[in-house]
Amino acid sequence: MLLSQIHEPDDLKQLPIEQLTPLAAEIRQFLIEKLSVTGGHLASNLGVVELTIALHYCYNSPRDKFIFDVGHQAYVHKILTGRMDRFDTLRKHNGLCGFVKRCESEHDVWEAGHSSTSLSAAMGMALARDLKGGDNKVVAIIGDGALTGGMAFEALNHIGHEQKDLMVILNDNEMSIAPNVGAMHNYLTKIRSDKNYLRAKDEVEQLLKKIPAIGGKLAKTVERLKDSLKYAMVSGVLFEELGFTYLGPVDGHDLAGLIEAFTQANNVNGPVLVHVLTTKGKGYTPAEEDSHKWHGITPYKIESGQVLKAVGNPMYTEVFGRTLIELAEQDERIVAVTPAMPGGSGLVKFGERFPDRMIDVGIAEQHAATMCAALAMEGMKPVFAVYSTFMQRAYDQIVHDICRHNANVMFAIDRAGFVGADGETHQGVYDIAFMRHIPNIVLMMPKDENELRHMMKTALEYNDGPIAYRYPRVNVPGVPLDEELKPIPIGSWEKLREGDQVAIVATGPMVQVAEEAAEILKREGVSIGVVNARFLKPLDNSMLLNLAGAGTKLIVLEEACQAGSLGSAVLEFYAEHGITGTDVSLMGIPDRFIEHGSIKEQLREVGLTAEAVVEQIQQYRAEHQFSFGKKVKPS
Amino acid sequence: MLLSQIHEPDDLKQLPIEQLTPLAAEIRQFLIEKLSVTGGHLASNLGVVELTIALHYCYNSPRDKFIFDVGHQAYVHKILTGRMDRFDTLRKHNGLCGFVKRCESEHDVWEAGHSSTSLSAAMGMALARDLKGGDNKVVAIIGDGALTGGMAFEALNHIGHEQKDLMVILNDNEMSIAPNVGAMHNYLTKIRSDKNYLRAKDEVEQLLKKIPAIGGKLAKTVERLKDSLKYAMVSGVLFEELGFTYLGPVDGHDLAGLIEAFTQANNVNGPVLVHVLTTKGKGYTPAEEDSHKWHGITPYKIESGQVLKAVGNPMYTEVFGRTLIELAEQDERIVAVTPAMPGGSGLVKFGERFPDRMIDVGIAEQHAATMCAALAMEGMKPVFAVYSTFMQRAYDQIVHDICRHNANVMFAIDRAGFVGADGETHQGVYDIAFMRHIPNIVLMMPKDENELRHMMKTALEYNDGPIAYRYPRVNVPGVPLDEELKPIPIGSWEKLREGDQVAIVATGPMVQVAEEAAEILKREGVSIGVVNARFLKPLDNSMLLNLAGAGTKLIVLEEACQAGSLGSAVLEFYAEHGITGTDVSLMGIPDRFIEHGSIKEQLREVGLTAEAVVEQIQQYRAEHQFSFGKKVKPS
Repeated sequence: MLLSQIHEPDDLKQLPIEQLTPLAAEIRQFLIEKLSVTGGHLASNLGVVELTIALHYCYNSPRDKFIFDVGHQAYVHKILTGRMDRFDTLRKHNGLCGFVKRCESEHDVWEAGHSSTSLSAAMGMALARDLKGGDNKVVAIIGDGALTGGMAFEALNHIGHEQKDLMVILNDNEMSIAPNVGAMHNYLTKIRSDKNYLRAKDEVEQLLKKIPAIGGKLAKTVERLKDSLKYAMVSGVLFEELGFTYLGPVDGHDLAGLIEAFTQANNVNGPVLVHVLTTKGKGYTPAEEDSHKWHGITPYKIESGQVLKAVGNPMYTEVFGRTLIELAEQDERIVAVTPAMPGGSGLVKFGERFPDRMIDVGIAEQHAATMCAALAMEGMKPVFAVYSTFMQRAYDQIVHDICRHNANVMFAIDRAGFVGADGETHQGVYDIAFMRHIPNIVLMMPKDENELRHMMKTALEYNDGPIAYRYPRVNVPGVPLDEELKPIPIGSWEKLREGDQVAIVATGPMVQVAEEAAEILKREGVSIGVVNARFLKPLDNSMLLNLAGAGTKLIVLEEACQAGSLGSAVLEFYAEHGITGTDVSLMGIPDRFIEHGSIKEQLREVGLTAEAVVEQIQQYRAEHQFSFGKKVKPS
Repeated sequence: MLLSQIHEPDDLKQLPIEQLTPLAAEIRQFLIEKLSVTGGHLASNLGVVELTIALHYCYNSPRDKFIFDVGHQAYVHKILTGRMDRFDTLRKHNGLCGFVKRCESEHDVWEAGHSSTSLSAAMGMALARDLKGGDNKVVAIIGDGALTGGMAFEALNHIGHEQKDLMVILNDNEMSIAPNVGAMHNYLTKIRSDKNYLRAKDEVEQLLKKIPAIGGKLAKTVERLKDSLKYAMVSGVLFEELGFTYLGPVDGHDLAGLIEAFTQANNVNGPVLVHVLTTKGKGYTPAEEDSHKWHGITPYKIESGQVLKAVGNPMYTEVFGRTLIELAEQDERIVAVTPAMPGGSGLVKFGERFPDRMIDVGIAEQHAATMCAALAMEGMKPVFAVYSTFMQRAYDQIVHDICRHNANVMFAIDRAGFVGADGETHQGVYDIAFMRHIPNIVLMMPKDENELRHMMKTALEYNDGPIAYRYPRVNVPGVPLDEELKPIPIGSWEKLREGDQVAIVATGPMVQVAEEAAEILKREGVSIGVVNARFLKPLDNSMLLNLAGAGTKLIVLEEACQAGSLGSAVLEFYAEHGITGTDVSLMGIPDRFIEHGSIKEQLREVGLTAEAVVEQIQQYRAEHQFSFGKKVKPS
């Protein structure tokens, strides 16, 4: 086995070129086997096996910097930099991270998770290198999907202008997670379709240089003619116009071709873009045939390609998707907007049913949000379906275009709370804190799927501005569904359990945790109250006054960053109403980033469990020597 | 006077074309006169006089939708839609807004303030139109500067793909606020320089269509040859490759040419981009000669072009710029990064002194932030100099790239707090709330310029992650400056005044307000404490414990949105430490958008004045019948 000889990139460089192809085959086999057990980003990594080998063969990491956009396609890089033996722990608690991770290796120089950041990172590293007088190479590897994110264009625009030495590898597999959309994609397709047209770029340019300069009136015409000839002979003129030297397209599964292209790129001054054509899922038929499904995959049977799905209730995502179809059947104003996540957001069937009302904008959260504002202002009822973590990228558009216009945009915020194996870059734990302070918005979170459906109806009937429902990346509890969907009064909470002196104000899945804690305490003869804070904004003022008036100790329980979220809102409410003496405890996520693992492990790590709630109440009880069962006024 | 006959666009349409040029001259004269008194965005509006006339002449607003990017260049639009008589109140409290404003006129269909949103808005309106079966036109007017913002590219990518009928007018004046940078700018310059080359696009395309289709092996070659010919004859191939029909460049001060171009654009199916060349400041020599200075201008003398500047202390911005040069002389790791705001951020002299260490990325906040992370990770000390309101656009990059990497990025957050005449789109009142919950960041705000200088030193010497200092858009108080700059201990507050029972915890300019309130009360024999909360994160734990322990009533006073800012942080601290009974009042900005006016008016509107503080304390005193002067323990 060749693979067992590779512990670091230098080992790779010892191999003769002809052994790289068998090495690639071994790596593919390794990935297919390992991921069949752990799950992970299979298709993208199968697509970049040769590309990654060629990079490590041609460059000297970590001196030369590899910046992987998103960073989910760095498994091969991890294998080649000594982390092969950790793949059994992939994406598990304390295990190998599914993304590039600096603490794992000196070869990991830039972390990501969200897309389209690599070009900015590369520019920063190139600038720093030049200011320090260094001469290392900087290489960004970005997919054609990530290229549609606006910040990638901002970087292209800056890089093309500054003309720093820097290499962009465009890993063109025609996909974001879903099939790519957008004019840039169409442009790249045009180049791809023409890939057999061999262009000897250097020769063309040399030739053109030989045409003597002509002065006078004809000078411009001759220049244009030269440009035109170049255009006829060379692909990628769009990138050339933006100041890049374009090389390609190169077959991303041909090692010799890749090595030749990288060598050529190294001889170019200024920014170079190497256009590499790869096939997502390459070498594993099921993944090649449906790379969308195999982008991020759960464990599977290797031979049949059968995916092993946990049996259980559907995810909230599915309930959302189904309910949206129901509502859209009744109301033709509904339009669904997704930034490149039709599958992840449960909108595939919606798109089949209402192709005109399903708008996939590509990886473009900013554009999506602002476009939703305009759709709403023209009388439509847009649903911006977006993961909490990716919505971060539209913060300004939410403030400036949606909330300031008070536009009737509905937000379906998926993956709210912990997300599990994707880890710290994907946790959906900030949206309450970064949205709650924006004027005009209404924020909701359901305790179960039945409530989610009513919230969707609530949002649809609400016509006073933006309104959001957020839901977690978990299976629904499986409660019975009401037949008729009815709007929930805005700002109303739900008292689920009366109790003595202590009440838990919880939201979303934490309502269930609060109920469990209440059950445990009940068995000990202690009865506590549980409130479903289904609105995060506005709050239920009368219930809050009532809870305080009764001399209750409140625990605000939420799977969200503790600073600035629901707990703060409750504290602000009491402060604004001059109510002191109510003992409010906050149980949220502490002020640090929480790494990958299962959602259960993440909840346990931060103490968001029924046991932790019980413990806190027991401790409070001991300290205050409260006799539960007897109501007392606050001192 | 022609202008006095125009009350709505229909009046304009009654004029014969040859009267439009004299009308343009009248409008210019009107703008120059009015703005000499009120100030405002003179140069941009002088640049679009003919363009706006031609738009209203060719289209039917409000049925056809005009979407002005940023919206500061809509003065001519306001004049032509019946708002001429309100220009004396321009940008004043309750007066005419400096931006497009829907409540002012049915002709204002989309508001902005931040750049690069117009294409997304246009796409939303075009989609809604088609879903509803309408046939109105949608026209976005965007500057070449705004085009560098990433979300504009996201929209171009989507529009070019969907092929909706929609018109983009690229108002190319070669400027953002400052001269434009970037590869797109270079590309446009290339087209501009070639503008005398008259291209009869239609004829070329007709001609090319006549070349018979050829099958077989040569088909591709012939297609390429045709593309190549088109490229030789037609400008704007970059936009064409992205799916737009490109028309232009057109002289933006030639009314007949503009009207012809718009008529031509109307006959095109799918998205059209009309490239219009304008001169910022056109028709007023001082503004033409220095359009950067005349972008947003204070009152001036018309004949000399002399700007009437208020005499007074320098702005915080200037102190920042000067101090940064001092620090950079000592420390060559310092790099200043600005998203197209070298002037506004006080970095012009820095750029002259250290051209290599001054990086203007264009309107590209996302790219700027992430690039800063990479610069820091490579050992530089980047200062991201950005207005609070524009930093909103980099929220995700701050979370994902700067704070998660714990990179040593310094933030110089200018325009923190109210901004005055620019109004609700520009208020810098959210940054505490949207940054405080992000792990790893340190946030500071100085009470005066001397403290700002020490904070800049503090930030430079801090090597444990991101650190920010925010400062307001006001003149500094004019305190003496310490010669030696010393770091302030992280998280330490400053007790400025000991008092009995009531203490004000204030930050930034509110410290001065607190001091004034304390002085007023002192004259009444009441002494209150004043604390300078110079760190917004982390808080000064021991001082907070101390304040609570003494049984103090606290008022947290801040020029920031009340939800989620410093007041919440204080409340959270006490909740986390189980301290009840301390009476904490929040005095911040209520949960609504605050419109244009002077900063003083804005502060008065929300009750952030010494008088309001005094009143609150007097009321508290009356209600609680506290005898000031005697310390009591909390009940």
